[in-house]
Amino acid sequence: MESKSRVVALSGGIGGAKLVLGLSRVISPGDLLVIANTGDDFEHLGFWISPDLDTLMYTLAGLADPDRGWGRRDETWTFLQAQDQLGGETWFRLGDGDLATHLQRSEKLKAGVPLSRITAEFCRRLGIASRICPMSDDRVQTRVRTPDGWLSFQDYFVRRQCEPSILELVYDGVEKARALPEVLQALNDPDLRAVVICPSNPYLSIDPILNVPGICEALADCSAPVIAISPIISGQAVKGPTAKIMRELGVEPTALSIAKHYGELLDGFVVDETDAACCRDLDIPVIATQTLMLTLADREALARTVLESADTLAKSL
Amino acid sequence: MESKSRVVALSGGIGGAKLVLGLSRVISPGDLLVIANTGDDFEHLGFWISPDLDTLMYTLAGLADPDRGWGRRDETWTFLQAQDQLGGETWFRLGDGDLATHLQRSEKLKAGVPLSRITAEFCRRLGIASRICPMSDDRVQTRVRTPDGWLSFQDYFVRRQCEPSILELVYDGVEKARALPEVLQALNDPDLRAVVICPSNPYLSIDPILNVPGICEALADCSAPVIAISPIISGQAVKGPTAKIMRELGVEPTALSIAKHYGELLDGFVVDETDAACCRDLDIPVIATQTLMLTLADREALARTVLESADTLAKSL
Repeated sequence: MESKSRVVALSGGIGGAKLVLGLSRVISPGDLLVIANTGDDFEHLGFWISPDLDTLMYTLAGLADPDRGWGRRDETWTFLQAQDQLGGETWFRLGDGDLATHLQRSEKLKAGVPLSRITAEFCRRLGIASRICPMSDDRVQTRVRTPDGWLSFQDYFVRRQCEPSILELVYDGVEKARALPEVLQALNDPDLRAVVICPSNPYLSIDPILNVPGICEALADCSAPVIAISPIISGQAVKGPTAKIMRELGVEPTALSIAKHYGELLDGFVVDETDAACCRDLDIPVIATQTLMLTLADREALARTVLESADTLAKSL
Repeated sequence: MESKSRVVALSGGIGGAKLVLGLSRVISPGDLLVIANTGDDFEHLGFWISPDLDTLMYTLAGLADPDRGWGRRDETWTFLQAQDQLGGETWFRLGDGDLATHLQRSEKLKAGVPLSRITAEFCRRLGIASRICPMSDDRVQTRVRTPDGWLSFQDYFVRRQCEPSILELVYDGVEKARALPEVLQALNDPDLRAVVICPSNPYLSIDPILNVPGICEALADCSAPVIAISPIISGQAVKGPTAKIMRELGVEPTALSIAKHYGELLDGFVVDETDAACCRDLDIPVIATQTLMLTLADREALARTVLESADTLAKSL
């Protein structure tokens, strides 16, 4: 059992990136492959922006802003000030350093380079030993239906601050999106130790990934345990609109609902100690631990617990 | 004579902008129209960059960096650092605030807005009362032939630091470029007090403007005196490659050569006191004064001298 070393993580942005960082520090970082949500990607001012890829990349490179959770540390905002002065759009907060990422991605995409290769090159430049893969090189766009009609994701998330109720979500283009061969290969690797579904928003961050044809099947078929970590703690999301969206979709915002949402995909479920009782009746192993990740030590501790739980689960698979 | 109030200036970037600033401060700024060279404009990283328009704009808005002479004051360079970190191009120094100008210009040009209207809107936003007009809304590209072959202007000027010898210059597209109606109208205005050819590089900054069809004719026909200020002082350029280029083109780098270059276009010529002797034999009035503009007071003083000389010349036209 000890010989299995590789880990695949499915992740959105901020919350997921915390655990991804922990994972990258408790295993050999080269053994970690992250499948990132790209349903939030969008074009803005001519730039192609991939928020979750960027958050993961900056986090693993040690460049992430520790307070905001997104964007780069030591960022400046001179561009945005000048943009405002000249009457340009400023609703999406583009940091000066961040612009270089968006600009280079846009230029390369226009030149026909696939997003996965662009991301790999960025990671190489930033000294990231783990692999970060977009869920697909094909374009998928998360859109939400609200009482005001259909909104693009960033319109809903940033411009409208998640204020409108979500009545329905779609991941436009996902049915035709192709999973990356290296992702499918990683999930099929006999050396795979665990598949970790990070504590990200299931609807906005994980479901787009799971809806890419072939990903769910690969998870079901893979030899390693699939473990999710609840993004809901005591009925609340640590950050972001997860609980609000669950209520709007008629789902009780509990850890139990998260486990039920993923259903048969899971071999094990990690919840906060405060949620152990509500998940008592699940028919998969539930691991209760501290899931709130405030410090780097918290991220590493949760990563260790998740992987040790996977090792235990693997014995009974 | 006193009732004539309007002034038209032909200008390149840094050197010309100094006098333009002086002019805008000694007359009612709304009476000043600047025709700017756009032969240096180029596309870089997807941005449309108009170096001379920007220098003039930042200078008149009080936003120009006082030391560099180009770009914005209080500029940050985070984008360029991140660009370097990710392996992107950094040979053209793009400041973070400056990027907003280039981005908005590019976006609007792509949407079909003419450069003149974009520039007017920027000026309005930045509170500039004078008009800054590109020499044309049509694209003109200065290129230079060197022993290494043809180079685009920025390749020569920024990337190669003006190092290669210039054997020949062309202003690609200029023969089809259309002058702006408002520029021709300004030159035809009976209220025109003076046309000022700023102390810019004649080959790189002024000739592209003069080669736009209709501009030379409008200068020849206009009711006001046309006065040039020599960019060469004591055989040297204050800044930039003017003297070097003159030598490469087989022209002695003197104020006299500048006057001969403009020839019959001029009604008067302003030179530095140190160059009065060499221009003695010119058959147009030569005004000798301090032309080196180190301080704001220098800019205003030279502007006043130029306009007063124009008023004197006008009496004998």
